[in-house]
Amino acid sequence: MRIAIDAMGGDQAPGKILEGALDALSLLEPQDELILVGNRDVIEAQAGARIAAASAAGGRVRIEHATQVITMDDSPVEAIRGKRDSSIVRMVKLAKDGGADALISAGNTGALVAAGVLMLKPLAGAERPGIAVFLPSAKGAVMLCDAGANVQPKAAHLYQYAVMASLYVKAVRGVENPTVGVLNVGTEEEKGTPLVKEAKDLIQKDAGLNFVGFVEGRDIPKHPCDVIVTDGFTGNVVLKVVEGWSEALFHNLQREVMGEGPEFAGKLKPVLGRMMKRYDHEEYGGALLLGVQGTFLKVHGSGGARAIKNAVAAAKTAGKLGINAEIEKRLAGMA
Amino acid sequence: MRIAIDAMGGDQAPGKILEGALDALSLLEPQDELILVGNRDVIEAQAGARIAAASAAGGRVRIEHATQVITMDDSPVEAIRGKRDSSIVRMVKLAKDGGADALISAGNTGALVAAGVLMLKPLAGAERPGIAVFLPSAKGAVMLCDAGANVQPKAAHLYQYAVMASLYVKAVRGVENPTVGVLNVGTEEEKGTPLVKEAKDLIQKDAGLNFVGFVEGRDIPKHPCDVIVTDGFTGNVVLKVVEGWSEALFHNLQREVMGEGPEFAGKLKPVLGRMMKRYDHEEYGGALLLGVQGTFLKVHGSGGARAIKNAVAAAKTAGKLGINAEIEKRLAGMA
Repeated sequence: MRIAIDAMGGDQAPGKILEGALDALSLLEPQDELILVGNRDVIEAQAGARIAAASAAGGRVRIEHATQVITMDDSPVEAIRGKRDSSIVRMVKLAKDGGADALISAGNTGALVAAGVLMLKPLAGAERPGIAVFLPSAKGAVMLCDAGANVQPKAAHLYQYAVMASLYVKAVRGVENPTVGVLNVGTEEEKGTPLVKEAKDLIQKDAGLNFVGFVEGRDIPKHPCDVIVTDGFTGNVVLKVVEGWSEALFHNLQREVMGEGPEFAGKLKPVLGRMMKRYDHEEYGGALLLGVQGTFLKVHGSGGARAIKNAVAAAKTAGKLGINAEIEKRLAGMA
Repeated sequence: MRIAIDAMGGDQAPGKILEGALDALSLLEPQDELILVGNRDVIEAQAGARIAAASAAGGRVRIEHATQVITMDDSPVEAIRGKRDSSIVRMVKLAKDGGADALISAGNTGALVAAGVLMLKPLAGAERPGIAVFLPSAKGAVMLCDAGANVQPKAAHLYQYAVMASLYVKAVRGVENPTVGVLNVGTEEEKGTPLVKEAKDLIQKDAGLNFVGFVEGRDIPKHPCDVIVTDGFTGNVVLKVVEGWSEALFHNLQREVMGEGPEFAGKLKPVLGRMMKRYDHEEYGGALLLGVQGTFLKVHGSGGARAIKNAVAAAKTAGKLGINAEIEKRLAGMA
């Protein structure tokens, strides 16, 4: 397995990204290869010694040179078109040309999705790729799909997301027969838009899916099911509201606690640390672009070494289990 | 002003609802009237003595008898059709027949909206009513509209929500020239669905509105603007995700803190109390059904005496300022 990592993307690039990538060498098998995509000089200055040591110890690591960087402020589609020698475009091109089996980046989400959708070959039967993310829940994590690749999907797309996400959750998290719900404004049958009603009908009729019905936003933290499908507009808003709200609540709590004096604040710190870890994206191996060839993982922009290492682990699992082959087989059966 | 209050709706009905209603008498003027809608026997058993005392002191309070109650589990449209003698249907009918100027309920949201939309006369120029709710933010509160009345709006409806919510925020919270944003998956012009792009164009062209552009879910707690418009599907999901997430975070925090021993937990309790108050719906006077005759406020299901009293205050302010007349004037100018 050849795993390409965008060394230049994310708030902690290149230092912590390279650290996580090289930490992940311990997870790889002899035939695996790690490809660090980015400016060769920068990468060597940051991690040259570790790369040389890893190579000497038999690890296969190489650098794919790219002179440009797509920043968080770049407009996605313009950046993909304009920065042809950016680490993101180079990385996705590697996969397109058959030079990488898995892609990992903590860079500009919009640019990554645009590159994936525009440049990568879709899986047979997957009409539109979807972004699948894990949200923390009472039972560990719920997979939400689509979190923003496809803002105006058809019901058939939501149905395909249900199939793909179920296979992924089963493989990566070991959930037998994952439960699936459709996000809606209420649980009653008559609620919602034609899109969610039609998607519900398609998913419900499929005996291979473990459908539980409509689920509400309020219940996501309670883990109403293992997979929640929704349109990419709503899914993206949900993901960002969850992030913004968690951040705001922790921020306010810290401010309130500071007012109680340093001793009290000091005692609360580890408690908050444990809490935040549960709401921490680094644990979940990143968002997945479901429905394209290979394994394409988007790590949170603030992700550091641990997030990158967990993403490599997820990519290895997904690759080993051959989820894409299973998805194509299952989608062919639907058509 | 005649203010009708659903005495039977909400988790704390009838006791705390009646308490809040009678507390609110202190906010009223001599010509105002309070109408308590619900089962006469229950209301008199709970609050007969206070009602008698209030009447003796010159307060105008009367009971509108209703034998049925729509519960939280009732299916909204069926309940409105089936329970013709419920407190909700009786209360909305009062407004419809000109017997009440403001309506307040903590009952079944779906049933309240259905009753409002199906039974009340829309304001001239307001094609579809929208639910406007306040979400806590860094500057106090952001008004989100629509939070679920209209799950498949046209761009013109979002434009009307922007106009109506701006006038409401200006009047009730005293914000001069409130800023308005459209909720989207990114702030860039090319992002999003045709609906949000078209709504943006309509709002932007209107020199009477203070448009700031697209806003993201992540930024809501930072108060990116005073009014955020969105379709009722997304808005309802956002509202419920915010509720569910706040609840889950506080719950987890309390559990973590309990593990640190009773002394520490005891010290944190008032801190959490202050925090929760900031995220507390009772402070905001309820959600408003914008675009119908009168003032129709939905208090949170868990709302108690304080929430009801605050809703009465909001209704008084809205009524006094003649917001509906101003809305109709403004909407007539658009058409």
